[in-house]
Amino acid sequence: MTSPASLAPELEVSEWIGTPQSLADLRGEVVLVETFQMLCPGCISHGLPMAKRVYETFRDVRVLGLHTVFEHHEVMGPAALRVFLSEYRIPFPVGVDRNDGEVVPVTMRTYGLQGTPSTLLIDRAGRLRLSAFGAVDDLLLGARLGMLLAEG
Amino acid sequence: MTSPASLAPELEVSEWIGTPQSLADLRGEVVLVETFQMLCPGCISHGLPMAKRVYETFRDVRVLGLHTVFEHHEVMGPAALRVFLSEYRIPFPVGVDRNDGEVVPVTMRTYGLQGTPSTLLIDRAGRLRLSAFGAVDDLLLGARLGMLLAEG
Amino acid sequence: MTSPASLAPELEVSEWIGTPQSLADLRGEVVLVETFQMLCPGCISHGLPMAKRVYETFRDVRVLGLHTVFEHHEVMGPAALRVFLSEYRIPFPVGVDRNDGEVVPVTMRTYGLQGTPSTLLIDRAGRLRLSAFGAVDDLLLGARLGMLLAEG
Amino acid sequence: MTSPASLAPELEVSEWIGTPQSLADLRGEVVLVETFQMLCPGCISHGLPMAKRVYETFRDVRVLGLHTVFEHHEVMGPAALRVFLSEYRIPFPVGVDRNDGEVVPVTMRTYGLQGTPSTLLIDRAGRLRLSAFGAVDDLLLGARLGMLLAEG
Repeated sequence: MTSPASLAPELEVSEWIGTPQSLADLRGEVVLVETFQMLCPGCISHGLPMAKRVYETFRDVRVLGLHTVFEHHEVMGPAALRVFLSEYRIPFPVGVDRNDGEVVPVTMRTYGLQGTPSTLLIDRAGRLRLSAFGAVDDLLLGARLGMLLAEG
Repeated sequence: MTSPASLAPELEVSEWIGTPQSLADLRGEVVLVETFQMLCPGCISHGLPMAKRVYETFRDVRVLGLHTVFEHHEVMGPAALRVFLSEYRIPFPVGVDRNDGEVVPVTMRTYGLQGTPSTLLIDRAGRLRLSAFGAVDDLLLGARLGMLLAEG
Repeated sequence: MTSPASLAPELEVSEWIGTPQSLADLRGEVVLVETFQMLCPGCISHGLPMAKRVYETFRDVRVLGLHTVFEHHEVMGPAALRVFLSEYRIPFPVGVDRNDGEVVPVTMRTYGLQGTPSTLLIDRAGRLRLSAFGAVDDLLLGARLGMLLAEG
Repeated sequence: MTSPASLAPELEVSEWIGTPQSLADLRGEVVLVETFQMLCPGCISHGLPMAKRVYETFRDVRVLGLHTVFEHHEVMGPAALRVFLSEYRIPFPVGVDRNDGEVVPVTMRTYGLQGTPSTLLIDRAGRLRLSAFGAVDDLLLGARLGMLLAEG
């Protein structure tokens, strides 16, 4: 878990399921980006349920999903993702991290993520304040969100 | 939850992942067949974990999976299933319920299953003793297994 | 976890909360005796909830509690126990294991129990078939109950 | 759940188990006071485990327990409480809310608490910022703590 304070790079998304989003447009808001793969057990048991809880609990936090496929690309394409999001009733917009021919997609490389699930928190000024790989404790995540929401 | 006592029809499987199985060959054993779809949330949160617990708890119960795809066939084919079974470390053999062009696959139709997950219990004489749709309570399932194991 | 098959000694109870019970009168029934102490964390998190699930799941299993106080006797007397059973809504009869001046009460000594919670299973013939210290897995307990219920 | 912002009245405690505490001395710190009764099921399943998680997660939050006995006084006295705190390994100081002969003890009356468990949050300036009856969600509690910690 690291807390760099540089500006969060823009999400490089080839396709949005739900309303398209950009970090530039979300300046002024606290944003949580949950990165996942649809066939990653830890994403389904921990990452996505946690993101859903944040979505349902904090009206003033913007929650986005980012499908960062870095393995088994052939069975986790956009058509499979759409079925997955519908079956699991994911209520927030999800972007497909752009694949430029490398195994690891563009945004995942830019952010230097170690795997899935990873959780990103971005403050109202657009700075990356948390990048955490693996399960994040609800109390700790709540505290981070509370601190970011308290910032003017 | 119903308890018919007729002979369990043979599984109609187009492809096995793991060692091929037939109910005929398993005569003399207590068998649990867990039917599921890889993108069915209830199968992942309840059905398959329960089948894994039975596999790990009872050495003398044979546990099989049956992939009964009746929706979104295009994204739940055998290649996707193989990735799923590997990611979720499913330790027992899984058959693909044969699709003959109908929406609902052959074995699922033969057994009259209502959906996924469904759990089938077959006794040593090859008779179907339980066909239950949805989550099955561990105490109740344990009791059914105990009764079947106690039969000569 | 041991499975002796000798006749289960009678419960030595100084006071029943709920209808008084005796193993002699319960001959012909499958009986589960959950031994516990009201200030034992494992009894409250595992043992008693498990006994309640058995009570609610199996109409033909008789569930009894036995308060086997072997420490802190001064704060776990019958008056405190009555409040505890009421607050936790324990639905089955509970006996107080008779204290004859020793630290460990009589029935607990007779059965050679190692601590609390311990679970006893007694078959229709009145024989002790399971004496297990600590948390018992629902699948395994269900199987034991199923086997005992299947016996004539 | 209410969020008054008046100064938190001092805790009226007849006896401390652990180091004695006063809100006056804790000025400058964020304080969580978990009020409970040792035979209250919701306190044991939700309130106290949550307080323990806060204690273990946030080094800079002071966690206190307050035993607010308003029923069954005869079996929840200080001797029983000491056994309880030891068995449940409660790691923070616990005060006994002073009983002045009324059914409801003094601090509980002063704060107007509805029952147990109730959770109080007090900010660095000594003001009561949260008084919540019942289970508090970890994400929400974390956010409240994060906001209070972020205040100068």
